[in-house]
Amino acid sequence: MNAYIKSIGAYIPEKRVTNDELSKTMDTSDEWIRSHTGIGSRHIADKEMNTADLGVKAAEVALERAGLKAEDIDMVILTTATPDYVGFPATSCIIQDKLGAVNAGAFDLTAGCTGFVYGLEVAKNFIENGSMKNILLVSAEMLTQIANWEDRNTAVLFGDGSGAAVISADESGVSGIDDTILKADGSGAWTLERHTGGVVHPYEEGKTTWADTALFMDGQAVYKFAVKVNAILITSLLERNNLTIDDLAWIVPHQANERIIQAAAKRLKLPIEKFFMNLEEYANTSSASIPIALNDMYEKGKLKRGDKLLLTGFGAGLTYGGSILRW
Amino acid sequence: MNAYIKSIGAYIPEKRVTNDELSKTMDTSDEWIRSHTGIGSRHIADKEMNTADLGVKAAEVALERAGLKAEDIDMVILTTATPDYVGFPATSCIIQDKLGAVNAGAFDLTAGCTGFVYGLEVAKNFIENGSMKNILLVSAEMLTQIANWEDRNTAVLFGDGSGAAVISADESGVSGIDDTILKADGSGAWTLERHTGGVVHPYEEGKTTWADTALFMDGQAVYKFAVKVNAILITSLLERNNLTIDDLAWIVPHQANERIIQAAAKRLKLPIEKFFMNLEEYANTSSASIPIALNDMYEKGKLKRGDKLLLTGFGAGLTYGGSILRW
Repeated sequence: MNAYIKSIGAYIPEKRVTNDELSKTMDTSDEWIRSHTGIGSRHIADKEMNTADLGVKAAEVALERAGLKAEDIDMVILTTATPDYVGFPATSCIIQDKLGAVNAGAFDLTAGCTGFVYGLEVAKNFIENGSMKNILLVSAEMLTQIANWEDRNTAVLFGDGSGAAVISADESGVSGIDDTILKADGSGAWTLERHTGGVVHPYEEGKTTWADTALFMDGQAVYKFAVKVNAILITSLLERNNLTIDDLAWIVPHQANERIIQAAAKRLKLPIEKFFMNLEEYANTSSASIPIALNDMYEKGKLKRGDKLLLTGFGAGLTYGGSILRW
Repeated sequence: MNAYIKSIGAYIPEKRVTNDELSKTMDTSDEWIRSHTGIGSRHIADKEMNTADLGVKAAEVALERAGLKAEDIDMVILTTATPDYVGFPATSCIIQDKLGAVNAGAFDLTAGCTGFVYGLEVAKNFIENGSMKNILLVSAEMLTQIANWEDRNTAVLFGDGSGAAVISADESGVSGIDDTILKADGSGAWTLERHTGGVVHPYEEGKTTWADTALFMDGQAVYKFAVKVNAILITSLLERNNLTIDDLAWIVPHQANERIIQAAAKRLKLPIEKFFMNLEEYANTSSASIPIALNDMYEKGKLKRGDKLLLTGFGAGLTYGGSILRW
């Protein structure tokens, strides 16, 4: 019995900010952002919204498409790097309550932008060991709230959004999550961090500045890591499953930066057309980017049941992971 | 093939603070703390230590007892409510790097004080689906750093510490993690929270006070919840596995408060001697309390392979969960 992605959903905040609009308040330009990242716009959530709100909206779409009620869910797994609270309580519990998923457990999973790939494997395992029937995997991120808007190299990269998937048992034999790699390299933990707010650098009243709590990224280091692990994930997953690129309908990489994806494709001599990209519209939405991409593909009719997809995630931690699945 | 707890380890900071010592700086007393909680002392980590440091120390003990090297680990799962950073990077990645677990993935799991029980099931699933051989499950908490030392009702409750378990496949047929319940009730999310620091209440320079970032607890509400769900977990796990209390060697509850455990025992008419408790020494160490308890039991010779144990966890989220396992 295989677990599979029974349904997919996403939520994108209405407010859309183009590069040209950004360049009115920051020393940047559409030309610079496009040429360095491929990003054209990002969507920004209202100040009143939070990560749980974003997650609930994507979850409602996924539940409806699965033909399930909230009560049918056995577990809510939220992947996020922008939790609503620090440690107490888990944001997934707020989503569980707002949805009315009264029979579910709930926990948050932190693995940076690789969160959805990690969560997919954890969800699959719950289904395939037979103890649960339906898992709601939610990836929701409010990155624009923690972006450092005084740092033009990083602030332009991020957007808000959420995706959600229902993971259940496939009864058709057509679909499945067939092979997964999950890895970490904590030696690069310092290349993507929020400096202050945790145990290592607690808030200091009167000393901590707002910028201390914002997201810092060593762009060059992360770029090199991302190109390297994308190539490793794609090569390893194809080789150990005796597949070639022609067997894949799509590669769906984490939507961080078009340059990363192009460099990985070039290194592996793979056609860039195999890589699904929608980051021009949404920018980098961290762990939400893969389910937002899958939702886009689903809504545009690009996914047929049984199609082989290869997902690749990479990000803070550093973490990386990939899956081969049959949609 | 069953997954089991192959080895257990823990780390307790050396610095021990008795109730009498606390009463020198707070308006409290040994008599009040003991009669309301059963707590006699707590251990407090040095300011220079952090959650990853605590986790590494427990992990080293568990690895040695398992006869494994760090390279043998396929996944590091950290449960914590006190991460070293907020979202970026996951603290588990820092542990992965410090240990030299170069072949492992890593992620953090947030489910309040129930974290270890959630993590145990997630780890079990990785082993039993055959994709991984050895999981390092670490639970590490620095609660004294986020306790509100101006609130005598809550600050006295908490201690620092860490536990770790290696989860592997049992080849003897004697051991296993046989049944697990994982639940959440997010309607009580507000009864245990750190108000400021996440997306809902971001840090505001010049406005946020230290106390805003400390742990708040509605003690009465949490107490009622804890007694109720302890009774539910014990009753449900015994009933659905056709077991009676006599089949169990021990019930190992989350070590929050002796009064909670006594009230649950009384409600179920169970002998209090079946409940292992060491909270008098360590106070409430959140998700680390169950592995610290198991480590104590192991070191005191109280655990024999094949012994049936029932674990119960409950805490922020709100979350709760329990497992029946054969040691």
